[in-house]
Amino acid sequence: MNDVTVLGLGAMGSALARTFLEHGLATTVWNRTAAKADDLVARGARRAGTVADAVAAAPLVVVCLTDHDATEQILEACGDAMAGRTLVDLTTGTPEQARETAQWAGKHGAGHLDGVVQAGPGQIGTPDATLFYSGAPQAFAAHRAALELLGTTHHVGDDAGQAALYDLALLGLWYDTTLAYLHALALVGGAGDVEPFAPFAARQIDHVVQAAPEVAREIRDRAYPRGPASLTEHAPVLEHLVRLRTASNLDTAQLEHVLSLVNRPIAAGHGAEGFTSLIEELAPIIFAA
Amino acid sequence: MNDVTVLGLGAMGSALARTFLEHGLATTVWNRTAAKADDLVARGARRAGTVADAVAAAPLVVVCLTDHDATEQILEACGDAMAGRTLVDLTTGTPEQARETAQWAGKHGAGHLDGVVQAGPGQIGTPDATLFYSGAPQAFAAHRAALELLGTTHHVGDDAGQAALYDLALLGLWYDTTLAYLHALALVGGAGDVEPFAPFAARQIDHVVQAAPEVAREIRDRAYPRGPASLTEHAPVLEHLVRLRTASNLDTAQLEHVLSLVNRPIAAGHGAEGFTSLIEELAPIIFAA
Ligand SMILES: NC(=O)c1ccc[n+]([C@@H]2O[C@H](COP(=O)([O-])OP(=O)(O)OC[C@H]3O[C@@H](n4cnc5c(N)ncnc54)[C@H](OP(=O)(O)O)[C@@H]3O)[C@@H](O)[C@H]2O)c1
Ligand SMILES: NC(=O)c1ccc[n+]([C@@H]2O[C@H](COP(=O)([O-])OP(=O)(O)OC[C@H]3O[C@@H](n4cnc5c(N)ncnc54)[C@H](OP(=O)(O)O)[C@@H]3O)[C@@H](O)[C@H]2O)c1
Repeated sequence: MNDVTVLGLGAMGSALARTFLEHGLATTVWNRTAAKADDLVARGARRAGTVADAVAAAPLVVVCLTDHDATEQILEACGDAMAGRTLVDLTTGTPEQARETAQWAGKHGAGHLDGVVQAGPGQIGTPDATLFYSGAPQAFAAHRAALELLGTTHHVGDDAGQAALYDLALLGLWYDTTLAYLHALALVGGAGDVEPFAPFAARQIDHVVQAAPEVAREIRDRAYPRGPASLTEHAPVLEHLVRLRTASNLDTAQLEHVLSLVNRPIAAGHGAEGFTSLIEELAPIIFAA
Repeated sequence: MNDVTVLGLGAMGSALARTFLEHGLATTVWNRTAAKADDLVARGARRAGTVADAVAAAPLVVVCLTDHDATEQILEACGDAMAGRTLVDLTTGTPEQARETAQWAGKHGAGHLDGVVQAGPGQIGTPDATLFYSGAPQAFAAHRAALELLGTTHHVGDDAGQAALYDLALLGLWYDTTLAYLHALALVGGAGDVEPFAPFAARQIDHVVQAAPEVAREIRDRAYPRGPASLTEHAPVLEHLVRLRTASNLDTAQLEHVLSLVNRPIAAGHGAEGFTSLIEELAPIIFAA
């Protein structure tokens, strides 16, 4: 038996296989276009002729393909070879797709982890690469040592969909935060240069970074102290901001949405609470139980 | 002549006057409700009986009242006493209100700065208090030494409205960024605990903090390198995020707005540019000249 098999040798899959080889793991590789394995074979990898052969070669099978459709095709091709193996799928996908693959693995007698790579191929094997995994904790524990060679490694949940959910939530957070910054620059830029404003904006965004753990604890405890201002105090400030943005021909959809959210708990008698309590308006599903 | 006059001795005005006194400045104070001056008088302040007397007492007149309406009433009451003085208005208001007060000062032969306090009264006199000023640079230069006693001091523009604009842009940035974070927590919280996600979210927001100066430079230069992904690559990711949020009953207005913004430059042949180029969609006014 080899230590690990890598299926899919695109930019990312090659970087994964190379890192395993660099750490001395006996590595079997397979790629649809066989020539992409040549460099890895020169570095000591064993080339498998078929998916089934590749899967049979090692207890840990890492898959990294274009998308979930490709993963489905590969898995069909491997038949029952996956039984007794642990399938670690680093192909980008949705939480639902990760759960489907977990089900497939369960039916075929295999362990399963879904994984997300938050890095480019060049960062694989360094601490700068962050990788999220979710799925059965036993599967993670069994293969943790090998997976940790790839970068900074986190098991983020037993539900197979959790890693993909983290990935998508973090992507959305980047878009939302970047757009928040661009909106602020647009407001200031209408009246002058944006560059002198940047350090103040950065510091303001950093306040949210610093408050992040505390906000999460407030949500855990469902206790929302007013902090710097209560919802009742936020409302007129928000109304004023909407007017200012309107006067600057800037989009106000987001702020008007916040204002409508703020007004709901105020109307329900929770005006003395802090801003974090809006989470109960945003995500009633969390608190349904 | 005293060194400085403070009009308005609420929570903030008292803190300002106390700080001037602590640094040995000869300080005259006035408040509508006279008793609020008692403590400051005990600390060495001179109490003025009328607004006009207070204004006559010092070359630098700091005003800190509830709102712009209050400032207007005070200024009416002081008649021509302001001639030859510099009025520094630390009352919260809009850019337009700051420009109105600047005009009033000009007509009455007085200098003027509008100011914004980004701190609570307890931080006044410490570096943790940030104060923005805008208006004639000569007025700022003349009174800089006294103003710097109040906290970390920035002159952010010659236009009187600039300090208030910074204030409002930063406030909006806080709401937008905090809401971005709450949205991400809501997405993750629908499937589990939010606390383990907080450090990853904080790091993601911090990426925007780190990129802030570079993004401002790109806007200055109107050059938008693709960075981690081009607009053409962002579009499908955004479509996917919209689907995921919809499936989680989360608001998608903001992301759909981003998607519509991204699609415009793509349609115009700028799909190879980076995300910062969206500023030209958000704020065409900046680039109109
Ligand atoms: N590259 C990055 O920076 C990065 C970062 C984070 C996550 N990821 C994720 O990692 C995964 C792989 O990305 P990549 O950059 O390595 O992509 P890539 O360079 O385009 O490689 C795609 C791989 O998938 C294989 N493949 C596609 N369809 C297939 C099918 N139907 N059957 C068998 N093999 C198939 C390709 O085989 P052929 O060689 O035969 O075409 C190739 O090995 C993606 O899900 C991506 O989102 C990538
Ligand atoms: N407190 C903070 O944390 C903070 C932080 C940043 C900025 N600010 C800004 O600082 C300003 C003052 O805030 P504050 O906290 O000091 O408020 P405050 O404690 O409520 O004091 C308000 C002051 O305004 C005076 N006033 C109101 N209307 C007046 C009128 N028509 N004529 C004369 N005087 C009038 C009040 O006089 P009486 O005593 O006679 O009522 C009092 O001195 C506000 O614009 C606020 O936004 C405050």
